[in-house]
Amino acid sequence: MKKNYKLRKGYSALLLLGIMTIMASAQETDQTRIKALFDTALTQGKAYDWLNSLANQIGGRLSGSIQAEQAVDYTRDQLDSLGLDKVWLQPVLVPKWVRGTPEFAYYETTPGITTNVPITALGGSVATPPKGIKANVVEVQGIEELQKLGSANISGKIVFFNRPMDATLINTFTAYSGCVDQRYSGAAEAAKYGAVGVIVRSINLRLDDFPHTGSMDYGDIPVAERIPAAALSTNAAELLSTSLQLNPDIKFFFKQNCKQFDDVTSHNVIGEIKGSEFPNEVIVVGGHLDSWDLGDGSHDDGAGCVQSMEVLQLFKKIGYRPKRTIRVVLFMNEENGLRGGTEYARWASTTKEKHIFALESDAGGFTPRGFSFDCSPEDFEQVQQWKTLFEPYLVHLFEQGGSGADINPLKTEGLVLAGLRPDSQRYFDHHHAENDTFEHVNKRELELGAAAMASLVYLYDTYGNAKSK
Amino acid sequence: MKKNYKLRKGYSALLLLGIMTIMASAQETDQTRIKALFDTALTQGKAYDWLNSLANQIGGRLSGSIQAEQAVDYTRDQLDSLGLDKVWLQPVLVPKWVRGTPEFAYYETTPGITTNVPITALGGSVATPPKGIKANVVEVQGIEELQKLGSANISGKIVFFNRPMDATLINTFTAYSGCVDQRYSGAAEAAKYGAVGVIVRSINLRLDDFPHTGSMDYGDIPVAERIPAAALSTNAAELLSTSLQLNPDIKFFFKQNCKQFDDVTSHNVIGEIKGSEFPNEVIVVGGHLDSWDLGDGSHDDGAGCVQSMEVLQLFKKIGYRPKRTIRVVLFMNEENGLRGGTEYARWASTTKEKHIFALESDAGGFTPRGFSFDCSPEDFEQVQQWKTLFEPYLVHLFEQGGSGADINPLKTEGLVLAGLRPDSQRYFDHHHAENDTFEHVNKRELELGAAAMASLVYLYDTYGNAKSK
Repeated sequence: MKKNYKLRKGYSALLLLGIMTIMASAQETDQTRIKALFDTALTQGKAYDWLNSLANQIGGRLSGSIQAEQAVDYTRDQLDSLGLDKVWLQPVLVPKWVRGTPEFAYYETTPGITTNVPITALGGSVATPPKGIKANVVEVQGIEELQKLGSANISGKIVFFNRPMDATLINTFTAYSGCVDQRYSGAAEAAKYGAVGVIVRSINLRLDDFPHTGSMDYGDIPVAERIPAAALSTNAAELLSTSLQLNPDIKFFFKQNCKQFDDVTSHNVIGEIKGSEFPNEVIVVGGHLDSWDLGDGSHDDGAGCVQSMEVLQLFKKIGYRPKRTIRVVLFMNEENGLRGGTEYARWASTTKEKHIFALESDAGGFTPRGFSFDCSPEDFEQVQQWKTLFEPYLVHLFEQGGSGADINPLKTEGLVLAGLRPDSQRYFDHHHAENDTFEHVNKRELELGAAAMASLVYLYDTYGNAKSK
Repeated sequence: MKKNYKLRKGYSALLLLGIMTIMASAQETDQTRIKALFDTALTQGKAYDWLNSLANQIGGRLSGSIQAEQAVDYTRDQLDSLGLDKVWLQPVLVPKWVRGTPEFAYYETTPGITTNVPITALGGSVATPPKGIKANVVEVQGIEELQKLGSANISGKIVFFNRPMDATLINTFTAYSGCVDQRYSGAAEAAKYGAVGVIVRSINLRLDDFPHTGSMDYGDIPVAERIPAAALSTNAAELLSTSLQLNPDIKFFFKQNCKQFDDVTSHNVIGEIKGSEFPNEVIVVGGHLDSWDLGDGSHDDGAGCVQSMEVLQLFKKIGYRPKRTIRVVLFMNEENGLRGGTEYARWASTTKEKHIFALESDAGGFTPRGFSFDCSPEDFEQVQQWKTLFEPYLVHLFEQGGSGADINPLKTEGLVLAGLRPDSQRYFDHHHAENDTFEHVNKRELELGAAAMASLVYLYDTYGNAKSK
C-alpha cells in the first residue's frame, strides 16, 4: 500500500507538473500569438489604407446613398482579396433619408439685423416650408422643462434644447447618454405643445463651429404634425443663449429641405474563415459600414469596419487557422434604423450555427484602452484571467457594460457580447460632424485597436466561452 | 487583571477603530479633493487658453529668440495674476542658435534632373558653404556601420542615416531612444571618416512630409572640421533610399545657413505658494518653456508648462492651502543645452530648502495614462498605494523609470522624481516639427493631465515622501 501510495503520489505529482507545463506553455503560446498579431498589425496592417479608400475615395456613406453602395462593393472586393472561405452580401431593406441642399439659419435681434449660425438637419427630420421658418425662441435645458412651460409658452415658437454635456464625466459616452434625449425625442415632445420647430445644441464637449447631426424620432406624431429639427454648433448655441438673455424677443430662422424616401435595398457585407474543428460555432467581429453624410465617417464607423476586416487579415498573415468560424460583418444602417444588425440577428436565429462571441468596434479609431463585456459573471471571470495578456499593449481596462448597437440584437444566453473601448476624449469632437475625417485618425492607434480585437477573438477561438468549453 | 485586560482590550479596539476611522476619512478627503481638482480642471481650467496664447500669440520659442523672451514675460505675468506668494525670474545663460533662411535640398538622379526634398537643419549644426554642398550619398543604418565602411567609402560623401523607429514597440519613447543617436552623434562620427555632410531620417513613426529637427553635438571635433547636418522627412528618406537602390550614383544637394551666436541671458520662470507648515520643504512641478523654432511647440513643451501653471491655479481655485511649498518652474533651454534645469538645481543646492518631490510634464498634452517614478523602492511602494485614487480618471499606470530632463539634475537621495506619462502614440508625429501646433492639442486631454499632476502634488504635500514622513 505504502509503495502504491508513493507511486500514486509520484504519479499525481507528475500529472500536476504535466498540467502546469501545459498551462505554462499555453500561456506562452498565447503571448507569442498575441505579440505576432500586434507586430503584424503595426508593420503590415491594411486597416489604414482601407480607411483611406473608404474616407477619401468614397466619403460619407448614409444608408440608401450611392456612397453606401460603393462602400458595400469596395469592402466586399477587399474581403474577396484576402482569400477567405466565403464572402457574401446579405440584403437589408434600409430607410433612405436625403439632406438636400445645405441648411441655412440665422437669428434676428431686431428686424433686418441678423447673425448667421451653423446648423444641420437632424437625420429623419422633415423639411421646413420652402421659405423656411421664422419664430420666437424658447430655450430649455431638457424635455422635462417643456411640461412646466406648457403650450402657452411654447405654441408657435421654436424650442431650443441647450443642455450641454457634463464635462466632469471622464467617459464622454456617459456624458453623451445624458444629452441625447434632446436630439432623439426633442421634436416629438415639443410638437405636443405646439412648437413649430426644434433646434438642439450639438452633442459635443468642445466649443467649435461644427453642427453635429444624428438620429431623431417622431414617435407616434402623425406625419402632418411633425416639426423640423436641426442641430446648432456649440459656439452658436452659446451665442444664441447669451443673446436670448439680452433680448428674449430674438427671432430664429431656419430652412432645410431634407426628405424621407421609400426604403431601398442595401446589404450587410460578410466574410468568414471557416472553423477547422467547430465550424458551427461562430465568432462575429464587426462595425457599421454606413455613416452620416457630413464628413467621411472615418471614426464613426469606418475605423470599426477596417479594424474588423483587419482581424481576418491578421489571422491569414500570421498563418493562424481558427478552430471556430470567424466572421466579419459590416453592418448597414446603424445610424438611422439598425436594420443591418436586426436582419443579421434574425438570419442567425434561423441557422444551425451557435454564436459564442460577438465583438463590435464603434467608438472611434483612437488608442484602445480595453473592452466592455455584456456577459454572465462566469464569462466575465474568464476574460479577467486574460487581462495580463493585454497589459503589455496597455489595452487592459476590462469592464462590464454594453457592447455595440449592431451586435446587441444577437443577445442570447451563453453568448458573450463585447465592445472595443478606445480613449473617448476626442470622440465627440468629430462624431456625426463635418470634421469626422481621415486626417483625425492615427494609423498606430487604429492598428492597436485591430490587434487588440484580433487577440480577444483569438482567445475566444482557442478557449471558447464559459458555456461552450 | 482580567478586568484591566478587558479594559485594555476595549481601549485597543477603540484605538484601532479610531485609526481606521481616521484612515477611512483621510481616504475620503483625498477622493473628494482629487475629484474637486479634476472637476475644476475640466470646467474652469486655464491651461488651454494659456497654451493658445503661447502657441498662437508667441509661437516657437527657441532659446535666445525674441519669442522665448516673450514667453518668459507672458508666463510671469500670468503667474502674477494667480495671486501666488512669490513669482520671480531666475537668470540663465543660454546658447543662441539661429536657423537663418529656409533650408533647401534635392537629389539629382542624372545631371540636371532633380527632386526637391523637405529638409531642416539639426539644432546646433553648422551652415553649409554659401553655395551648398553636393556630393554622393552613402546610406547607413546606424553609427556602427560607419566603421565597417571606413574612410574609403565615406570620405567626400554625404552620410545618410536611415534607421527607422521600431514600429512594434508600444511605447514610442522607447522607439525614439533606439534612433536618436543617429541625429545626436551622427555628424561627429561621420566627420571622423571624412564625410562632408550628414542627413538623417526624421525620428517619426508616420510616413509624412515634415522634417523633424532636434539637438546634435559635435563632441570634440574642432570647429573647422565640423560638417553640416540636417533631417529629411520620413517620406523623403524612403524615396531617397529607394532611388539609391536603383542608382547608387545619385548626388544629394543641401544648403543651410544656420549659425551659433554667443550665449545670451534668458530666464527660468518661477512661482510658488508658500507652505503653511513646512515652508522649507519644496515640491517642484514644471515643464520647459523653450521649444524648437518649427511649429509653435504646443506639445513640446507648451503643454507641460501650462499644465504645471494649472496645478497652482487649481489649488487656488479649490481653496487648498498646501502644507509644503509648491513651486512651478518653467525651465529655459531644455532643447539645446539644459541650462535652465542645470541652473535651477545648482541654485537649489545653495538654499536651506529641502526638495521632496519634483514632477515634470514633457511628453505631450495627450490623454494621461500614468506616471513614471525615479525613486527608492519605499517611495515606489508609497505611490502604489495611491493608484486606486487615480483609477476613476484612468491615469493609473505607475511605473519605475525616468522622470524629466529638466528636473533630473535635482536628483538626490530622498527626493522623488516623476514624469507625467500621456498616451505616446501620436507624440512623434509632431515632435520638433512644423506640425507641433495648437490644433493638435485637445483641451480635455490637456486638462486631465494637469488635474492628474495636481492630484499627485496634493498627495505628496499631504503625506510627504517615504523619507520625509
